[in-house]
Amino acid sequence: MRAPLYEGKAKRLFETEDPNVLRVEYKDEATAFNGEKHDVMEGKAKLNNELSALFFREIEESGIPVHFQEKISETEQLVTKTEIIPLEVVVRNRVTGSLEKRTGLEEGTIINPAIVEFYYKDDALGDPLLNEDHIRLLGAATTEELVEMKRLALLVNNVLTSHLEAAGLLLIDFKLEFGRLGNDGEVIVADEISPDTCRFWDAQTHEKLDKDVYRLGTGKLQDAYEQVRARIGG
Amino acid sequence: MRAPLYEGKAKRLFETEDPNVLRVEYKDEATAFNGEKHDVMEGKAKLNNELSALFFREIEESGIPVHFQEKISETEQLVTKTEIIPLEVVVRNRVTGSLEKRTGLEEGTIINPAIVEFYYKDDALGDPLLNEDHIRLLGAATTEELVEMKRLALLVNNVLTSHLEAAGLLLIDFKLEFGRLGNDGEVIVADEISPDTCRFWDAQTHEKLDKDVYRLGTGKLQDAYEQVRARIGG
Ligand SMILES: Nc1ncnc2c1ncn2[C@@H]1O[C@H](COP(=O)(O)OP(=O)(O)OP(=O)(O)O)[C@@H](O)[C@H]1O
Ligand SMILES: Nc1ncnc2c1ncn2[C@@H]1O[C@H](COP(=O)(O)OP(=O)(O)OP(=O)(O)O)[C@@H](O)[C@H]1O
Ligand SMILES: [Mg+2]
Ligand SMILES: [Mg+2]
Repeated sequence: MRAPLYEGKAKRLFETEDPNVLRVEYKDEATAFNGEKHDVMEGKAKLNNELSALFFREIEESGIPVHFQEKISETEQLVTKTEIIPLEVVVRNRVTGSLEKRTGLEEGTIINPAIVEFYYKDDALGDPLLNEDHIRLLGAATTEELVEMKRLALLVNNVLTSHLEAAGLLLIDFKLEFGRLGNDGEVIVADEISPDTCRFWDAQTHEKLDKDVYRLGTGKLQDAYEQVRARIGG
Repeated sequence: MRAPLYEGKAKRLFETEDPNVLRVEYKDEATAFNGEKHDVMEGKAKLNNELSALFFREIEESGIPVHFQEKISETEQLVTKTEIIPLEVVVRNRVTGSLEKRTGLEEGTIINPAIVEFYYKDDALGDPLLNEDHIRLLGAATTEELVEMKRLALLVNNVLTSHLEAAGLLLIDFKLEFGRLGNDGEVIVADEISPDTCRFWDAQTHEKLDKDVYRLGTGKLQDAYEQVRARIGG
């Protein structure tokens, strides 16, 4: 088997026969705090591959362009190759995590309308928050791309929020990555959408059912992810 | 004498007979890192009062609304009372300080057009960077106020940059505070404009002639401030 084109903390990317298509292999690794905390969690690859495929299909059906093509095994999916825009685009519906620290607002405070944040995808710099002037200064994205990413991120928020609500889950916040397509520079949703990149709370109890279980060490991550799958999974 | 209405790290504010007018008394204190570093520097009050008055007159002459009314003693000035908008508005013409850390760009890199940043004026939270969505969420300023503060900050930048250039100084970056007026909510430039709130470099040698001399412990702050005054001061 060929060496991966890229190996990250959560996934490996491989080239395929088709230069426009990549194979993504999800890994059983759980990491947090920029890789400082690190564990193997059996079954995570399968769960995230499944949930990511499910969410991508869901948002694609709403007319949002995505890189996802098809799930080809328990832990793998095919995606359209893109040039990743080096920004993490975060949408927030309730205050928690770094937003709680930044604003002093109470955890759980409802944010309506949802807000969007851009972080610089740079592990060495610690993925800092950027404003739009910083993004233009860095040449990370054009103004048009910023507008489009925000628009798409808020659309994704609407689709996922309704879908999860029906399963008794609150979508607290999530992180997207976007990629450019070679031909006309179209911007599409890439990377993954999973309990690693979203925060879900039980709608009734506000129990955390996402990677915060691991970040905060409050329970078994696998149980939380299984619960999410069981509720929305079909 | 009456107790101050407010005592900060660099200034004391007093009410006057006129409810719309405050007396600002500059202090001889130098502080940095949110008050962690702290010293008395004789003559600083006089210097900052003088330079702040000079800069405010300069920008007012260009038609920018300011709180400054008149210098009434070596260390005091009268200003229009405002409701301070809890944001520090930073304009940057070259990379240094936190922007260097945030972006990884090399110190001294020219930023053209200049960029604007908003920080939340909240010592307990460490004055964090905010984007425009955060500002609306916090209710710190309206969208109209944001647009107006950006416009005025960039105008101030033009005026000060030309003025300092003629004195052989580069305006690297500076921080403004804005206040609302009671009547129609007009937004005006408030607080101070001095070597405490601006970064100046010698245009030839790039020697630092501002509060960084104190922050970084590289020389005598008073010498640096005296030099700035000598060059621009008249
Ligand atoms: N369609 C795509 N085309 C090209 N690259 C992609 C695509 N989708 C995702 N990627 C990139 O593949 C990598 C996925 O690996 P993983 O999520 O494990 O990385 P990571 O450890 O989070 O590190 P980082 O995201 O900081 O590179 C990411 O760098 C992601 O940006
Ligand atoms: N025209 C004005 N009307 C009302 N308040 C003002 C005006 N100009 C400045 N201020 C406020 O007066 C205070 C000046 O004090 P100083 O600069 O010493 O404060 P500081 O130590 O920097 O602390 P902080 O700015 O965080 O309150 C600031 O809080 C500033 O916002
Ligand atoms: Mg990743
Ligand atoms: Mg101050």
